[in-house]
Amino acid sequence: MSHHHHMSAIARIDVKFNECDPMGIVWHGNYLKYFEEGREAFGKAWKFDFLEIFNKGFSVPIVHVNCDYKRPLVYRDVALVETTYRNTPAAKIIFDYVIRKESTHELICKGSTTQVFVNKDNMKLSLVVPDFFSAWMAQKKAK
Amino acid sequence: MSHHHHMSAIARIDVKFNECDPMGIVWHGNYLKYFEEGREAFGKAWKFDFLEIFNKGFSVPIVHVNCDYKRPLVYRDVALVETTYRNTPAAKIIFDYVIRKESTHELICKGSTTQVFVNKDNMKLSLVVPDFFSAWMAQKKAK
Amino acid sequence: MSHHHHMSAIARIDVKFNECDPMGIVWHGNYLKYFEEGREAFGKAWKFDFLEIFNKGFSVPIVHVNCDYKRPLVYRDVALVETTYRNTPAAKIIFDYVIRKESTHELICKGSTTQVFVNKDNMKLSLVVPDFFSAWMAQKKAK
Amino acid sequence: MSHHHHMSAIARIDVKFNECDPMGIVWHGNYLKYFEEGREAFGKAWKFDFLEIFNKGFSVPIVHVNCDYKRPLVYRDVALVETTYRNTPAAKIIFDYVIRKESTHELICKGSTTQVFVNKDNMKLSLVVPDFFSAWMAQKKAK
Repeated sequence: MSHHHHMSAIARIDVKFNECDPMGIVWHGNYLKYFEEGREAFGKAWKFDFLEIFNKGFSVPIVHVNCDYKRPLVYRDVALVETTYRNTPAAKIIFDYVIRKESTHELICKGSTTQVFVNKDNMKLSLVVPDFFSAWMAQKKAK
Repeated sequence: MSHHHHMSAIARIDVKFNECDPMGIVWHGNYLKYFEEGREAFGKAWKFDFLEIFNKGFSVPIVHVNCDYKRPLVYRDVALVETTYRNTPAAKIIFDYVIRKESTHELICKGSTTQVFVNKDNMKLSLVVPDFFSAWMAQKKAK
Repeated sequence: MSHHHHMSAIARIDVKFNECDPMGIVWHGNYLKYFEEGREAFGKAWKFDFLEIFNKGFSVPIVHVNCDYKRPLVYRDVALVETTYRNTPAAKIIFDYVIRKESTHELICKGSTTQVFVNKDNMKLSLVVPDFFSAWMAQKKAK
Repeated sequence: MSHHHHMSAIARIDVKFNECDPMGIVWHGNYLKYFEEGREAFGKAWKFDFLEIFNKGFSVPIVHVNCDYKRPLVYRDVALVETTYRNTPAAKIIFDYVIRKESTHELICKGSTTQVFVNKDNMKLSLVVPDFFSAWMAQKKAK
């Protein structure tokens, strides 16, 4: 966790045999699972509960993902996923991810995901940040 | 498809790069995906619709799976999954699977899955075969 | 396939039950598997063989991926993945992907992947396009 | 860990969103990933190193798996995988798995995997337990 200008959290992930491909490295698509674990760790650290968002009447589907791969990970490496909430005035939830290898702290990859607010009642995209969310974030940042 | 003593279907599956592990072979757990594709192919061939079962008020969760592995498959192999409905008086849906390599017809693995009928209303296991299902199967076997 | 200004191919993919998440839609990370199937289809259509590249002394790791999600796919939908080779003077292989739902031709997502040439002997990034590759592409475009 | 009659270890696994299917429960095939995490935890606890086996000249492919499913797990459940080494005079490595839900200790599933020793030099199945392995296990059991 961190001060209010920088909300982030770190997940520690053991690279599994079944996540590696015939090149012996983590298959590139599996990093999206690591990002998801990063969001989970962020949620736990910051009481940022996706189910609570759901209960408030919104789903928050991912509408964008990107990842730049710098170095590979292999079976038995340990990955550290740092997930940071990006401040934005847009009606979006954007997370930035930096994955490093625990043993050397080398940069493995960087990426981000963007989620939007969809009103569950009419399945319409919300063009403004829902009030409950603004209030929620303001409170967390004030911590 | 086949005569009434032997309801089966064949799915043809391209082995994908991301299904193979650092040994260069299909990771053993991925054969359960191939079995699922086998059930899908069976469903299409025999108009055996899992969604229809659902609409009749039942879910059919898998309660058992087993698999014996004989030879590996590698990236770019083509797998032929033969899925056969096993006749049983029990209130179960049992499928047997035989996977062969298309190019050589070598046996790759054999397995089976068992599904039961769960009443969606009370989430109780059905100890008898639902009437609609008995009638349905009788009709198919008569084909 | 297509004329020389536009090298592309289409893969047809059945959405599988095990690719869908608790929201009932394809989990966003699985689209990277669909992109990989798109590259495979491209390879078959254009005799673009990743193993041949490997035999020439290069590996072509993915260094970037991005995807914009427009609409979801559900179990039993059929996805059409159009994979297009992007012309670039850089020492990169860039593919663009457009996924549509077969039944309605609605746009599902758009994305791209970037691969680089790594010399297998010294594991160094190649800053120029390998000769065999330039010759190869020139020949294909002339078709 | 445990006394010499019962070599076992427990892995604690957070159920991930992307491991759950449209029924909202862990897709049955993903339990084979949990079993693999169970073997890893066993390996750490008992210094049972699959890479070391490999260095001794053997690979230990999985030739059999079975699983009986009793109750489902959902997103955010925590699974406890107890992995136990089964004593056998056969030239096999057999593990038994029992998965329970941490919060209630309810039984989720039971399964087992069987691995054999394959000589890497000639890719032949070893019909006897390799000497290094017998000595190794004898030592561990004596602990």
